[in-house]
Amino acid sequence: VSTPTFTSAAETIRKKRDGERLSDAEIRAFISAYSDDALPDYQAAALLMAVYFRGLDAAELATWTDAMLRSGTVLDLADIPGFKVDKHSTGGVGDKVSLILAPLVAEAGVAVPMISGRGLGHTGGTLDKLESIPGFRTDLSLSRFRDLLLEHRFALIGQTAEIAPADKRLYALRDVTGTVESIPLIASSIMSKKLAEGIDGLVLDVKTGSGAFMSRIEDARALAETMVGIGRAAGKQVVALITDMGEPLGRMVGNALEVAESCDTLRGDGPDDLRTLTVALGAEMLVMAGAAADVAEAEARLGAILNSGAAFARFERLVEAQGGDPRALGDTSLLPQAPAIETVRATRDGVVEDFDCAEVGRAAVVLGAGRATKEDVVDPAVGIEVCVRRGDAVQVGDALFHVHYRERARADVAAARLAAAVEIGDEARRATPLVLERIG
Amino acid sequence: VSTPTFTSAAETIRKKRDGERLSDAEIRAFISAYSDDALPDYQAAALLMAVYFRGLDAAELATWTDAMLRSGTVLDLADIPGFKVDKHSTGGVGDKVSLILAPLVAEAGVAVPMISGRGLGHTGGTLDKLESIPGFRTDLSLSRFRDLLLEHRFALIGQTAEIAPADKRLYALRDVTGTVESIPLIASSIMSKKLAEGIDGLVLDVKTGSGAFMSRIEDARALAETMVGIGRAAGKQVVALITDMGEPLGRMVGNALEVAESCDTLRGDGPDDLRTLTVALGAEMLVMAGAAADVAEAEARLGAILNSGAAFARFERLVEAQGGDPRALGDTSLLPQAPAIETVRATRDGVVEDFDCAEVGRAAVVLGAGRATKEDVVDPAVGIEVCVRRGDAVQVGDALFHVHYRERARADVAAARLAAAVEIGDEARRATPLVLERIG
Repeated sequence: VSTPTFTSAAETIRKKRDGERLSDAEIRAFISAYSDDALPDYQAAALLMAVYFRGLDAAELATWTDAMLRSGTVLDLADIPGFKVDKHSTGGVGDKVSLILAPLVAEAGVAVPMISGRGLGHTGGTLDKLESIPGFRTDLSLSRFRDLLLEHRFALIGQTAEIAPADKRLYALRDVTGTVESIPLIASSIMSKKLAEGIDGLVLDVKTGSGAFMSRIEDARALAETMVGIGRAAGKQVVALITDMGEPLGRMVGNALEVAESCDTLRGDGPDDLRTLTVALGAEMLVMAGAAADVAEAEARLGAILNSGAAFARFERLVEAQGGDPRALGDTSLLPQAPAIETVRATRDGVVEDFDCAEVGRAAVVLGAGRATKEDVVDPAVGIEVCVRRGDAVQVGDALFHVHYRERARADVAAARLAAAVEIGDEARRATPLVLERIG
Repeated sequence: VSTPTFTSAAETIRKKRDGERLSDAEIRAFISAYSDDALPDYQAAALLMAVYFRGLDAAELATWTDAMLRSGTVLDLADIPGFKVDKHSTGGVGDKVSLILAPLVAEAGVAVPMISGRGLGHTGGTLDKLESIPGFRTDLSLSRFRDLLLEHRFALIGQTAEIAPADKRLYALRDVTGTVESIPLIASSIMSKKLAEGIDGLVLDVKTGSGAFMSRIEDARALAETMVGIGRAAGKQVVALITDMGEPLGRMVGNALEVAESCDTLRGDGPDDLRTLTVALGAEMLVMAGAAADVAEAEARLGAILNSGAAFARFERLVEAQGGDPRALGDTSLLPQAPAIETVRATRDGVVEDFDCAEVGRAAVVLGAGRATKEDVVDPAVGIEVCVRRGDAVQVGDALFHVHYRERARADVAAARLAAAVEIGDEARRATPLVLERIG
């Protein structure tokens, strides 16, 4: 690169380092030069670290996010009728909400153009779960995505290379430069991808607790407020629910296991917490879209749809349209199955006081259900069934977890970690509500 | 590089980012991987920025500096008899002390293995000044350096590629990543080069005021204390004088002009401030080397040597040994001369209250006497003669500066900047002592 570019990039870094506000022009020049390979990684890394320490204010964040989303294609979904709304979760353990929510909200009449990601670290990813359905394809073109939306009012695809490529490059750089854990950088990364989807509204599920990236509620709240602010600045409707991730969501952790549990829930069954959270998020989407007068009305409608089986039927049709075998949704023996199951049992009488929920996620990664690094291949069959919830009384020998495994050695490691990830004591702690706060 | 290296580098960055102490092993792994091209610039840039914000403690600094100096050759000067001592200045305007000090202290019996740098920005560099002597070579091998030290008890060369190459690379990276202005990074950069010289002691001239990099005395003091601490941890004797750089040192700013002024001073003439500072620094070197009982005795001896002309004669012999024309030291018409001189005059009656001393340095850069970027070529002939000092009474029309120039257009810019760089008011400010503090 030429000297002037170098000089102004170094000047931009120094300004941020010294806590000064970056101008729109400086931010756009920086992001666009980085996208165009005209800015070396080391200057981007230095700026990211300066941002880690100094933050970005609301105006900087709006520009930063806009510059990232404009580094690629911004979907125009004007030809899809009505209000378009997506949901994004900051990631959890057993969080299969998207699989249920998208067909449910679509069935209620609101379009859900859902673009999902893969699991990384202790959290699972919607794409990995969907791909455990035999034949299901998530790597569809944006034009096929549009066709599916027109026909099914929802679709479930992965992020294409056209969406916010600057974010993809910056994320890879953050991953190796100790700059992942920055609220403005996390918020702008998420929002740049979501705002590129051509949506009118977005409901955010910001997780907190031992299984979340933001274990402290203060951080979750700051992240939620930051994302809501970015969305508002971009003219979108955005609401965030801060929800508890102190224990796994539902009973199942692992890809095919979570698909099966999602299908149960889509048919009106399934664990209470999973159904409750899905309906709470869906109600926000309906109200935002003007499809319900208030949250109570929306929740009642969504509950009725789940009980009717109509959401399940809608999901079956989409799965078939995306190449998947819909029979696997009704007959879980057609989903990948782990060859063996080991049970982790209680070694004392007592009450389940708490989980190290991230450790449950890491045990699933050990089994092969998730990725320690981006290059890891996921085993759709393996996973963990969580048999107890906080507050449950247990006796010596009661099952705490069923470990669905392929390799004995991995199962042993996972079982040991699971045994240590549940805290059994003498009395139950105060129950944590599932939805802790609403921001927006 | 392999994934494990990446992972541990990212972990090192995160630790420093979070304010944790880095271990010896982590620091050495980082510096050595960077030297060996096994660590990408972007990870080094991120760590540098984290160090900018979090600092390095004394133990980290000792290791960091040691790792940098061990990235290259560490001179062994055991065959040079006696105590070896060098002086380092953090850079100023008109600072030609090294040219006088090295032969002066050598004449007093103490070996001075001086390895100097070039000017950058508003400050001049000893190498550029020396190279204005026709024929003078500073790019000597370390073996030739050793021979000169044995014969002349001093020598004046530039940093070779073998000295602290990790520092050279890191400095280039800092320059483009906004991480220059960090006291621990500045201190370790200076000290790694100086400690690689095989010296027993070091006297630091840490400048403060409007012409210094550390304009605030608090910063200068912190830098001085940090460098003294590093030197002590390496088992060396180190003393720092914090000295005023609020106005140019001596009357001359510009390479050949400063050589001529240095020669005057070596013969017992020259401006008071230049002689005073040189003797003060030299006295510290003599006391440190055990060549004088105390500073007062040392100063008396050094003053007598200057007055005797013996230091000048020693300088002449070394100049000849390093390829320079010693006649140019006695007959300044043999030094490069600018073709024209313009005078900047006072536009009001009053007293010289203050200088923007860095601006005087920048005016010299405009003329071609210094470098705005490392690639610039220095013109040895051009420069500035400073006709007034703080506290001087002036009348309209009095000369403030003589601008020795080659190009009219540059002279006009320089003259305008010089006129604005001197503050003439109604009453003199309180005089600033030349040596403000002694640390060590």
